[in-house]
Amino acid sequence: MKINYPDGRIFNSPSKPSLHATNAKKKLIFGDRGMTLEEEINESNKYYRSHEIAVIYKKPTPIQIVKVDYPKRSKAVIKEAYFRQASTTDYNGVYNGYYVDFEAKETKNKNTFPLKNFHQHQIDHLRMCQRQGGICFVIIKYVTLKRYFIMPANDLFEHWDAQKNDGAKSIQLKDIIKCSIEIEANYNPTLPYVGAIQQLIESRKEK
Amino acid sequence: MKINYPDGRIFNSPSKPSLHATNAKKKLIFGDRGMTLEEEINESNKYYRSHEIAVIYKKPTPIQIVKVDYPKRSKAVIKEAYFRQASTTDYNGVYNGYYVDFEAKETKNKNTFPLKNFHQHQIDHLRMCQRQGGICFVIIKYVTLKRYFIMPANDLFEHWDAQKNDGAKSIQLKDIIKCSIEIEANYNPTLPYVGAIQQLIESRKEK
Repeated sequence: MKINYPDGRIFNSPSKPSLHATNAKKKLIFGDRGMTLEEEINESNKYYRSHEIAVIYKKPTPIQIVKVDYPKRSKAVIKEAYFRQASTTDYNGVYNGYYVDFEAKETKNKNTFPLKNFHQHQIDHLRMCQRQGGICFVIIKYVTLKRYFIMPANDLFEHWDAQKNDGAKSIQLKDIIKCSIEIEANYNPTLPYVGAIQQLIESRKEK
Repeated sequence: MKINYPDGRIFNSPSKPSLHATNAKKKLIFGDRGMTLEEEINESNKYYRSHEIAVIYKKPTPIQIVKVDYPKRSKAVIKEAYFRQASTTDYNGVYNGYYVDFEAKETKNKNTFPLKNFHQHQIDHLRMCQRQGGICFVIIKYVTLKRYFIMPANDLFEHWDAQKNDGAKSIQLKDIIKCSIEIEANYNPTLPYVGAIQQLIESRKEK
């Protein structure tokens, strides 16, 4: 429902917003929020959990703790610690009985996506999860283009392995478009990537 | 193959150890190693990963980082940080296509297992994962008794919820025995709990 007030304001009923109004809102909210991909995924995960659609979390950063102080009447303070290399990807969880595992990467490039964004341990971990029957993929955000792609892990492996043969240090956007599911940033959830997971599950069933 | 040497030593072929020898070895190795439950699970997870049986990890402890120093020619040092409450359980991963989620708890008690070992957020998280079709449970170690139990999450929920009605602050060992799968510490893997996961999957299929 859209009401045009005489003074030029437009009121949109929240229960049934018009398409036009939604787009206007989108531009206003999503164009200017400047969230990182990580923030967008974390927001989406909150939405998916609260609506019981999926239970997916970002794993905490692994830290090597060296020194902890226990001040009286106060909580423990870590005084010396170091960042550790993670052994896994950043995100995992469960959707409709399926194990889900993925890494999220963003680039400011407008075409090529550099493979150096990935680490060997992330590839190895995705391979192992894939072999265990998990739904594994990468979420790639082209920050400048505002485009998001869900790239199945198998396609990532192909490009990763091809490095050794053809020496290509990056993936071309056109190749990402070819093998990925493109999703659009939205509102509740911010990044509706579970729809893409459902598509991956269905295409696996067809095989 | 067992060889009795004249000097009283017993040699056991590693390919076919006798039952007796295995037990002797067990007592020697497992009785004295004094590993915590967490160490036992982490060791087992390494074994399961390297044998491609399951990909399960302990999640890192969540830390709130306040201050980081970046000394020249040296890696970043965290100078002030605090422990944060986790939102999830400690362990999750994938086994044969199934999402697996569990918490590990040990007690020095010989009979009752205090429910205060669990936090509300752990119960909530297990419930959500269970509703998403995950295989959810708790590994309970009776340190003094050297007994290990895999208790399905549903049974934990029953005892947790009963607190409100009957005020019982703990679970009796006999009740744990009744609803759980008991496993024994072993060698490679240290704690063969994936067999119990397989049993949980099969009993769910029967329902």
